[in-house]
Amino acid sequence: MKHTDHLKALVRDVPDFPKEGILFKDITTLLKDATALRQVLTWMAEPLYDENIDIVAGVESRGFILGAALAVSLGAGFVPIRKPGKLPAETIARAYDLEYGSNTLELHVDAIRPGQRVVLLDDLLATGGTAGAAVELIEALGGEIVRILFMIELEPLEGRSELEGYDVRTLLKY
Amino acid sequence: MKHTDHLKALVRDVPDFPKEGILFKDITTLLKDATALRQVLTWMAEPLYDENIDIVAGVESRGFILGAALAVSLGAGFVPIRKPGKLPAETIARAYDLEYGSNTLELHVDAIRPGQRVVLLDDLLATGGTAGAAVELIEALGGEIVRILFMIELEPLEGRSELEGYDVRTLLKY
Repeated sequence: MKHTDHLKALVRDVPDFPKEGILFKDITTLLKDATALRQVLTWMAEPLYDENIDIVAGVESRGFILGAALAVSLGAGFVPIRKPGKLPAETIARAYDLEYGSNTLELHVDAIRPGQRVVLLDDLLATGGTAGAAVELIEALGGEIVRILFMIELEPLEGRSELEGYDVRTLLKY
Repeated sequence: MKHTDHLKALVRDVPDFPKEGILFKDITTLLKDATALRQVLTWMAEPLYDENIDIVAGVESRGFILGAALAVSLGAGFVPIRKPGKLPAETIARAYDLEYGSNTLELHVDAIRPGQRVVLLDDLLATGGTAGAAVELIEALGGEIVRILFMIELEPLEGRSELEGYDVRTLLKY
């Protein structure tokens, strides 16, 4: 999307969250705006209509919010990538470092079949650690990552360098 | 939806999750099926097209998955209702009992304006405690609850009795 200033204006800056010194980009003020929400979905979906996407994978929990909406737009299924212990059946796991500590992501072993075309979705590209782990999980099941989408990119943290070789697109750059 | 057997067949029973003796209804096996996902969204959205819905509120985190999809279908905004400490700006909170313990939900104080027409969405109606707290939060901000939607209802737990007077609709009844 060329002109995103009206969307950026809807993102709320929250100082010192989740801890002192961090300026948090709060997208809830954008999501509650019906027009803005539809525009974000259109920006995600439109370039993918001809890409025969099978699965949209969303990372817990803000990646869930637009994940199923994108999946329905594309005639795809939705798959959640979750924090440890949340997925009830057999999973694979990857640990990763993130901006404020470290964590693990899990994916059901039967969530993606080999050769399925997958879009990965999360709200925020910071250091790229979360997305990198999600990529490893999808590829471990044989999924082909067609695109990686984020609503927000914090460019100084250089998360894109963790995702080299992938088609990464971000809506709002800071 | 009159005939939901094909959707029920896509829900996976996971014994002893999250603890021994609980038979967990896993909807991830339904969500990854593109056709089933679209059918669930249509079931939610179609009866609401003429209801002038302003906001779809989804409860963390499985209520997020279809929340934004439903919001876009209805030309509404999406609002997340979250566990404590997750929403960055000023919130109101309600504590509640749930099937396996107790918890608290939070909502941004500016998430809903007085008089806005709201659909509340969660994946599971069990004892009704979670939904009851979400209802209180929405109404505390002056939102008018037009409908409450769940994908799954565990009828023996009588959660509907907690939501008397509201238009509660559930897709898959067990």
